[in-house]
Amino acid sequence: MRVIRLLPRKADEMKKVSQRKTESSKQPLDPQIDHSVGLVQTNYFHFALPPNELILEGGEKLGPITVAYETYGKLNDQRSNAILILHALSGDAHAAGFHRREENPGWWNNMIGPGRAFDTNRYFIICSNVLGGCRGTTGPSSINPKTGKKYGLDFPIISISDMVNVQKHLIDHLEIDQLLSVAGGSMGGMQALEWLASYPDRVKGAVVIATAAKHSPQQIAFHEVGRQAIMADSHWKDGYYYGGHSPVKGLAVARMIGHITYMSEVSMAEKFGRRLSGNGKPHKFSIGFKVEEYLHNRGDHFVKRFDANSYLYITKAIDTFDVSRGRELYEVLRGNKAKVLVLSFKSDWLYPASQSKEIVKACKLAGVDTTYCEIDSTYGHDAFLLEVEEETHLIKHFLHKVSFEQGVIGEYEVREYAI
Amino acid sequence: MRVIRLLPRKADEMKKVSQRKTESSKQPLDPQIDHSVGLVQTNYFHFALPPNELILEGGEKLGPITVAYETYGKLNDQRSNAILILHALSGDAHAAGFHRREENPGWWNNMIGPGRAFDTNRYFIICSNVLGGCRGTTGPSSINPKTGKKYGLDFPIISISDMVNVQKHLIDHLEIDQLLSVAGGSMGGMQALEWLASYPDRVKGAVVIATAAKHSPQQIAFHEVGRQAIMADSHWKDGYYYGGHSPVKGLAVARMIGHITYMSEVSMAEKFGRRLSGNGKPHKFSIGFKVEEYLHNRGDHFVKRFDANSYLYITKAIDTFDVSRGRELYEVLRGNKAKVLVLSFKSDWLYPASQSKEIVKACKLAGVDTTYCEIDSTYGHDAFLLEVEEETHLIKHFLHKVSFEQGVIGEYEVREYAI
Repeated sequence: MRVIRLLPRKADEMKKVSQRKTESSKQPLDPQIDHSVGLVQTNYFHFALPPNELILEGGEKLGPITVAYETYGKLNDQRSNAILILHALSGDAHAAGFHRREENPGWWNNMIGPGRAFDTNRYFIICSNVLGGCRGTTGPSSINPKTGKKYGLDFPIISISDMVNVQKHLIDHLEIDQLLSVAGGSMGGMQALEWLASYPDRVKGAVVIATAAKHSPQQIAFHEVGRQAIMADSHWKDGYYYGGHSPVKGLAVARMIGHITYMSEVSMAEKFGRRLSGNGKPHKFSIGFKVEEYLHNRGDHFVKRFDANSYLYITKAIDTFDVSRGRELYEVLRGNKAKVLVLSFKSDWLYPASQSKEIVKACKLAGVDTTYCEIDSTYGHDAFLLEVEEETHLIKHFLHKVSFEQGVIGEYEVREYAI
Repeated sequence: MRVIRLLPRKADEMKKVSQRKTESSKQPLDPQIDHSVGLVQTNYFHFALPPNELILEGGEKLGPITVAYETYGKLNDQRSNAILILHALSGDAHAAGFHRREENPGWWNNMIGPGRAFDTNRYFIICSNVLGGCRGTTGPSSINPKTGKKYGLDFPIISISDMVNVQKHLIDHLEIDQLLSVAGGSMGGMQALEWLASYPDRVKGAVVIATAAKHSPQQIAFHEVGRQAIMADSHWKDGYYYGGHSPVKGLAVARMIGHITYMSEVSMAEKFGRRLSGNGKPHKFSIGFKVEEYLHNRGDHFVKRFDANSYLYITKAIDTFDVSRGRELYEVLRGNKAKVLVLSFKSDWLYPASQSKEIVKACKLAGVDTTYCEIDSTYGHDAFLLEVEEETHLIKHFLHKVSFEQGVIGEYEVREYAI
């Protein structure tokens, strides 16, 4: 299945598009000068302050809660142009632009900025770190006010629904009645589905990328082995390792497993083949192949920025996620007025297109206005971070369509992007 | 691609076959009474005794070497009916029958016995544990004669070629000039290919199941993460853990990763779905789903019978295996007189059919008499141990064809199996 075209295409439009595509591939956007949101900083929102607490899906209570978030662009006077970006397992609130004295931009920088897919000239973009995370929002490495120490495994079990509930509190705090759209890939796509299911009146659109309405046993299995690798690390100490050594070896193994599933056989073959690594190490089972070196580097890099307990809590939230709670998905979505864009990638074997098609089928059965595209890519699951041009094209048009329905822009602008 | 038929099929033969198939599915063979090789025991062959040593592919020397092996059936007077069975990563010499006071039969029991695929009424079946293993053949957990202690990481790096060289010494010892066939799946298939390449005059046939002529980077990556899990275990102690705690947690994680790759998405969905496990454990990240329980059980079971260092050495031998040593595969096989049967399984994503087809293509280019079948199975890589009926049918006929060429049986018997 390919793009379901939304508007008729005219011959002269096609010509214009083809010219534009050629030009843009010759003169790529310069992220530093024209299309970056530039210097940004993280904000913090606190709620569930004493005597209040947030009641979680599992029945436990949690508070106070801090939410780390960033915003790019300007909220319009009608407060109708806000888009909430939802991050994947290892993401954070820093989706775009640069932090002072840091080299790397936000994790979806090439998708967010003036003229980009999430165009900050038009939209007010919000991204927050999820509940249970370790990048500013309350999680197992936060201080437990009851003990004065870091939570560790005293942190309650959280769900994707809890993450989205916390996001809703943030949106309330920002006095945004309705989001123009929510958008995310992988676990971010699950949150987008959860927004549709739990707060149908609060979202006008949802961009759901490379995800599933619930995990298959194979997807659960990969996560479980990662969790086992962390818990097998003697430094894990039943989750109460703060202040001592962290279970970095176990976490690195978990991340390495993840990276295998994020790439495709083809992308690995193209990137590494059976080339050898020049990295000589002391013992017999040191790195031999380039692909091993890559995995080691990714693992080593990851443990510097991520908390092992957060990895446990978040992967468990993903595995137990079932947006329809055992019901038929179309029943949950019935009557939903939001427009939905579902994207999948041909070589993504972790979240195969079949799972996206199930979402699309349920949306269609529920009468939800839905567009689907399976993008031709060899990048595997990583494609959602890499296939910028294809995604930009599809998301830009989708957001214009939703904006047009909202009366934010005129018809001409919609047609311009109907390519 | 399906079976390449070897002999014309007649309508009445087909009818007979179809009847037989129905009967056999109604009245399955009784392994205990009619078709088992019964009680068996492991034998030990010692070579490379002082002052001799075996020179390994990597240039290092090793000796003395013990080889654990079993045999089933009877070697004929011409010594021309011997078949060498080659085991996979975690296999051993005990391929069929029962050991005294043990409940479980050998690992390929349903394929070896009177009337079975490897018919012990006709053939003399040999199976030995590989070099580097931990089930009777010399490996890293054997005593190093130079120190009087277990080798640990002083054991030299070994290759698939070294394993096969050791097998050749065993075959020499058994005074078998030519094997009627070698046969194996997964790593066993690699050994079969290595026999073809290194000792073309010593084999008349080769059954090559669910394997590759060399590992892809994705296959290397899965192994490497398993190795990392073992080496991340604090009990591993750079490989010198004998006498103390073994790195059982790391080894269990490695095995769990393996098991994910041995099953298919479909077989996992059929076997477990998202069903929950009843197994309540103390902390939050204990087993939740059935699929997790399965992986834990497999991991726990494995560490009782397998040595972590053997896992490192053998997986490394698999990863570095390249039967053609960088040359074109067909060049290595050119002029080979052996007949080859290549089998793959549709849902096997660890050793996909495409890798088997590369082997077939090279055999065809080299002018080797080759038959190929991609068996329709949902079991993934495990299929090679589970699709007994299909394999029996194909292998029985293949072995008859090779036997016929050898003059061991008459034409009638070949045609009987040409179904």
